[in-house]
Amino acid sequence: MSQTVTDFEVHDIRFPTSEQLDGSDAMNTDPDYSAAYVVLGTDTGGAQGHGFCFTIGRGNDVMAAAIETLRTHLVGRPVPRDAAALGALYRELTHDSQLRWLGPEKGVMHMAAGAVVNAAWDLAAKLAGQPVWQFLAGMTPQELVSLVDFRYLTDALTPDEALALLRAAEPGRAERTERLLAEGYPAYTTSPGWLGYDDDKLVRLAEEAVADGFTQIKLKVGADLDDDIRRLALARTAVGPGIRIAVDANQRWDVAAAVEWMRALAPYDPYWIEEPTSPDDVLGHAAVRAGQPVKVATGEHVANRVVFKQLLQADAVDFVQIDAARVAGVNENLAILLLAAKYGVPVCPHAGGVGLCELVQHLSMFDYVAVSGSREDRVIEYVDHLHEHFADPVVIRDGHYVAPRTPGFSARMLPDSIAAHIYPRGPVWQARLTAEETH
Amino acid sequence: MSQTVTDFEVHDIRFPTSEQLDGSDAMNTDPDYSAAYVVLGTDTGGAQGHGFCFTIGRGNDVMAAAIETLRTHLVGRPVPRDAAALGALYRELTHDSQLRWLGPEKGVMHMAAGAVVNAAWDLAAKLAGQPVWQFLAGMTPQELVSLVDFRYLTDALTPDEALALLRAAEPGRAERTERLLAEGYPAYTTSPGWLGYDDDKLVRLAEEAVADGFTQIKLKVGADLDDDIRRLALARTAVGPGIRIAVDANQRWDVAAAVEWMRALAPYDPYWIEEPTSPDDVLGHAAVRAGQPVKVATGEHVANRVVFKQLLQADAVDFVQIDAARVAGVNENLAILLLAAKYGVPVCPHAGGVGLCELVQHLSMFDYVAVSGSREDRVIEYVDHLHEHFADPVVIRDGHYVAPRTPGFSARMLPDSIAAHIYPRGPVWQARLTAEETH
Repeated sequence: MSQTVTDFEVHDIRFPTSEQLDGSDAMNTDPDYSAAYVVLGTDTGGAQGHGFCFTIGRGNDVMAAAIETLRTHLVGRPVPRDAAALGALYRELTHDSQLRWLGPEKGVMHMAAGAVVNAAWDLAAKLAGQPVWQFLAGMTPQELVSLVDFRYLTDALTPDEALALLRAAEPGRAERTERLLAEGYPAYTTSPGWLGYDDDKLVRLAEEAVADGFTQIKLKVGADLDDDIRRLALARTAVGPGIRIAVDANQRWDVAAAVEWMRALAPYDPYWIEEPTSPDDVLGHAAVRAGQPVKVATGEHVANRVVFKQLLQADAVDFVQIDAARVAGVNENLAILLLAAKYGVPVCPHAGGVGLCELVQHLSMFDYVAVSGSREDRVIEYVDHLHEHFADPVVIRDGHYVAPRTPGFSARMLPDSIAAHIYPRGPVWQARLTAEETH
Repeated sequence: MSQTVTDFEVHDIRFPTSEQLDGSDAMNTDPDYSAAYVVLGTDTGGAQGHGFCFTIGRGNDVMAAAIETLRTHLVGRPVPRDAAALGALYRELTHDSQLRWLGPEKGVMHMAAGAVVNAAWDLAAKLAGQPVWQFLAGMTPQELVSLVDFRYLTDALTPDEALALLRAAEPGRAERTERLLAEGYPAYTTSPGWLGYDDDKLVRLAEEAVADGFTQIKLKVGADLDDDIRRLALARTAVGPGIRIAVDANQRWDVAAAVEWMRALAPYDPYWIEEPTSPDDVLGHAAVRAGQPVKVATGEHVANRVVFKQLLQADAVDFVQIDAARVAGVNENLAILLLAAKYGVPVCPHAGGVGLCELVQHLSMFDYVAVSGSREDRVIEYVDHLHEHFADPVVIRDGHYVAPRTPGFSARMLPDSIAAHIYPRGPVWQARLTAEETH
């Protein structure tokens, strides 16, 4: 049977979330959560692969244009179904020398490669009849190592070291898979903490989070210190002393400001400070970590495996926050999971946005089964927005992600949702743009 | 008189340079040198501002799309003519929170901001009747400091420190301007060293470079060690012992490979090793610098001022290689010049490509007059390609850049060159694409 990629559709999909200030923080005050979305079509019984990048509005068209440049690497080529083909595709997309110039391996072009790589994983896992986490966890250590691009990593992690890590985790795979299916994977929620929410909404949502079984919440900070102290104190009162409250500055500070601000918040026992400064600033994160008592987390805007490598080499972070759609897809995130395991640093993914929870749960679950072998001090972010647009949305039960059983990467958006939110010609946007013109 | 930006034209311009292997190196084997080009039109007596990003072919359309997203920040707004307005424009373009998500401050979106910022500088300098280097060098230290975004820099350089540096250089400005106009600024040439050239062409071009007055040349390395040794030995014989031969690996190696390779080349006395590894790898560059005897240079792919800051903090480089069109324009390069001056590291710009020599000469000349105050151990790269397409091309005399006297940023491409090379509908490409189809 011929198995060929026959189609490559790209959509600019945007949700008008800025109207409710969902997702508002100290740096991102009016986001319209968006996805540059790609669908790989095949001649294999109608099987499709779905992938996307997450953006916050303007520029989503640039992402769509970047994804378009990758079309010729897919259409007319065999469907990548195994580790060898998925490794080759990832290398081809990130090593296209003309496109690499636009990064290299960062920003728009790198995220576009990630969307396409992830779509290929969605397709391959569907054809294998497994959710991505289980498809990955069924690969041999050698196959997993072959998926990784070790270029620029070998001063921190060699292929042999990666193989040894994966082999050490091999014996417990079956048992951990069972436990994962029975218990799920711990989650924390950011839903109470957006900066645009008033105090009453913050307290109400914090109380609801505890009632729903979450043992960790997160608040946005960094716009005003007095506000942050008041909000953190209110949240602490609402949830009690046993619940972890992480705080997130979304890159707001320079090193000295981060140190000073976090010393002021430390009495309210924040669990971690996330993105205290520029995601490019490895040495800055190390200085922040050394200069104040709160643990440091970052990663949602870290451009690639080379920067993650350095954050680990420099003892700059206590938690690695991978994002499923910022780097070049499953393959590069596997490299980051391996680096974190080598350095013994827990991975606590960034999620939220559009479909990021759906994707990243697979990576953490795979990490538990086949890489780190642990859920200790590990939590996946959960935000309760926009899941209704997905065909296989995440399921949260008692503060845990329930392991998905549907084949694929949980990445398929519902056709009606896509049609309604295409920018600018979908009906959701036509109504708004017409209203603006009338104003 | 009303002074408003009234027009914002964007062009996808490509040159079929891959046919001659000009620009070929260990990572970029078949570049088609390209520019995503923006023209700001005004109602001010027909004055225009010209700016661009440089790419090597595919993806130039993505850059053009990224530049397009910035249109609304310019059109209908007052023409930015002074430090206050040029500082405000730069901040507005790089702090647009929705677009910032696509970086932040790196890759496609950041280069697009740079193209537009540089076009604004071209326009402002023209209206001031000065070349950009002199327009900048005529600003007060306070005005120059106001152009910089110190966010994420203050652990290495505060506004007060920058002000002190600029004030210390103030007394000699007039004398250095005279010397610059009389003597020019030292250049080195990469023209002999492209990997796609055979040994005869290498030797011939190296001899010509010395005859033309250059005291430094550069060779591409990194594809094959035996070839590199042979080529470096040939070049050394051709130019003699008194000429500096820099080598450039274009990010080819991991840390250990870079150390090993450069130890093997060291007997042939290479002057610097450029881009030994990933431009994101601050700690890697520091390890390469510590592990072998050759000086280390990097910067043409360094994403932003935050990474340059760390390269300096970590003692990772001997030379800072700014690029006029990789970061967010004149303003961000001013930050990098100030950082380099603070750390006492010479700036030796990357150039070549399309129009990069034309732009970056202004920054080095300004640096000499008003920031570092020195030309010692400083050279601007020169490549003798594609200058014929510019209205005010660089002039090289006896191995030196002659200081431009035409108002603006030397960024204007000739209308006929633009029309011929628009991709894909310009005649140069129509002929090629038709020939490909016929094949």
